[in-house]
Amino acid sequence: MQDVTEILGKYSDNINSEMKTSLSNISPDELKEASIYLTKAGGKMLRPSLTILTCESVGGNISNASKSAAAIELIHTFSLIHDDIMDDDDIRRGKPSVHKVWGDSVAILAGDTLFSKAFELVISAKDDVVSGDSIHEALATVADACVKICEGQACDMSFEGDFNVKEEEYLDMIFKKTAALIAAATKTGAIVGGATPEQISALYEYGRLIGLAFQIQDDYLDLVSDEESLGKPVGSDIVEGKMTLIIVNALEKASPKDNQKLVEILKSDNCSQNDIDKAMEIIEKYNSLQYITNLAQEYVKKAKELLEILEDSEAKKALILIADYVLKRQN
Amino acid sequence: MQDVTEILGKYSDNINSEMKTSLSNISPDELKEASIYLTKAGGKMLRPSLTILTCESVGGNISNASKSAAAIELIHTFSLIHDDIMDDDDIRRGKPSVHKVWGDSVAILAGDTLFSKAFELVISAKDDVVSGDSIHEALATVADACVKICEGQACDMSFEGDFNVKEEEYLDMIFKKTAALIAAATKTGAIVGGATPEQISALYEYGRLIGLAFQIQDDYLDLVSDEESLGKPVGSDIVEGKMTLIIVNALEKASPKDNQKLVEILKSDNCSQNDIDKAMEIIEKYNSLQYITNLAQEYVKKAKELLEILEDSEAKKALILIADYVLKRQN
Repeated sequence: MQDVTEILGKYSDNINSEMKTSLSNISPDELKEASIYLTKAGGKMLRPSLTILTCESVGGNISNASKSAAAIELIHTFSLIHDDIMDDDDIRRGKPSVHKVWGDSVAILAGDTLFSKAFELVISAKDDVVSGDSIHEALATVADACVKICEGQACDMSFEGDFNVKEEEYLDMIFKKTAALIAAATKTGAIVGGATPEQISALYEYGRLIGLAFQIQDDYLDLVSDEESLGKPVGSDIVEGKMTLIIVNALEKASPKDNQKLVEILKSDNCSQNDIDKAMEIIEKYNSLQYITNLAQEYVKKAKELLEILEDSEAKKALILIADYVLKRQN
Repeated sequence: MQDVTEILGKYSDNINSEMKTSLSNISPDELKEASIYLTKAGGKMLRPSLTILTCESVGGNISNASKSAAAIELIHTFSLIHDDIMDDDDIRRGKPSVHKVWGDSVAILAGDTLFSKAFELVISAKDDVVSGDSIHEALATVADACVKICEGQACDMSFEGDFNVKEEEYLDMIFKKTAALIAAATKTGAIVGGATPEQISALYEYGRLIGLAFQIQDDYLDLVSDEESLGKPVGSDIVEGKMTLIIVNALEKASPKDNQKLVEILKSDNCSQNDIDKAMEIIEKYNSLQYITNLAQEYVKKAKELLEILEDSEAKKALILIADYVLKRQN
């Protein structure tokens, strides 16, 4: 994993500098601090790095992509802030979440501000090196992802307590909630790098597939990782009764009796370790862990095949490594 | 006022139709309904009508402006939904507010969705009649207004309980919170209508000035209107201890004793009619109502003078009427 950490780290100064400039003149101070807070909390920088790498992979350079990359990270941060309010999550990136520090109102506004600043950043990227048409296409890509993020979060919330969610519905939800922004990141990089329409399509699809695999791996790690790597107790999705692809698959395949037992555990307000073990037994009985692992591997395989449209380059190698990393990561 | 109601009503079918198309394919249904709800609640349509009128006033036509106009109304609606959550306001446009019907989480998402859709709408306006450069400038104008709306709301919240707010700070707050979007509405119309740079500047300033007058008139009506026209009790700003330009002015000019008395009333949790009358006495003693009325009239006068840059037209006449209406309206 050292390699990927290095790849993602390589661009972080550049991305941080663009974000810092963009957020430097917000007033009043409280709003400024709340808006900047999470951007300084050490995110992985996966999405903005993908924007720069896809730009480089089609012959562009970092100066074509850095503003759009920073904008993608601001959109991601905006969605984290608003999601944390909705889910009442206390911790984000190892720190108290924005609404825990400043309250819901300032957190709503900080998210809205980052959202606005993200569009400002992409708009400001129109210059000698990036044409107006490219910026227009990039803006359409980002706006489309923003709509999907909202729809995905709304779907996710509507799944709460619904134990009849179908695999197709679940995959559509994680596409919108997680993969759409990763796909927008890779597509935007391709656009500002001057890619052909075929390359733009392929890189969008690459982003979509690794985005889906990324979310599926999240579901997987919740059950098979250890608490130290994960930063939260193993099996917490079961305790919280959350619909994940593993649960969706197990419920679809389980006998009526096992289905009923699993739903009972998911519904329970006082889930014991024994309940988690029982749920794991049912999940293993129907090979649901294997099923979702295979699916994620298939997505990553297809994503890498799509990269064959690119000339060989360091950036292309990095995109292949990132596709693999999505499944190898432990947190 | 019949005239202005007719002017604003003239374009509402067009604007509603653009909004409807833009919001028609949101999913899931709950998010769609929450997003559409306020757009169907009979808003005044002041902002989007200004976009179309300014477009027409520089020689453009309604087809150049209708998408941008609808986008401006979506931004306005987004900000109302989020503001109502922050201020915990129960009623909006005579109906229960979005968060009262669907809860805070869906209301946050509905606002975010309208925000995203607004940018999509402006982006989609690039076609045979509106150039890419104009759309780029319109997008920059809208994004700038969005940042300012967030800053203005944050400032407004930070003024709560601060009885040392200066006039300049207050005017900057209402510029950002209210006038910036009205100015963006008039500037955007000018841009998509093909205005000269001088016309664009003049129409932005026209929007800014009538926006300031609009907000000052809101403060004025709270004290001098009747409950029936206003839809809320007269003097509610005093009861809530809200900083308005009237209060800012009275506190600045009052003797230490009157200042202290007024602050006491504003701070009081149980404000009686007697307290409101006493506050009004202090306000009248220092001519604060007259002061803010003069200021608003001066803004409207300047706004109308700026329109001299335009050729005579029906649209120009309408813009003059709207400037006057801002001060004549009773609610």
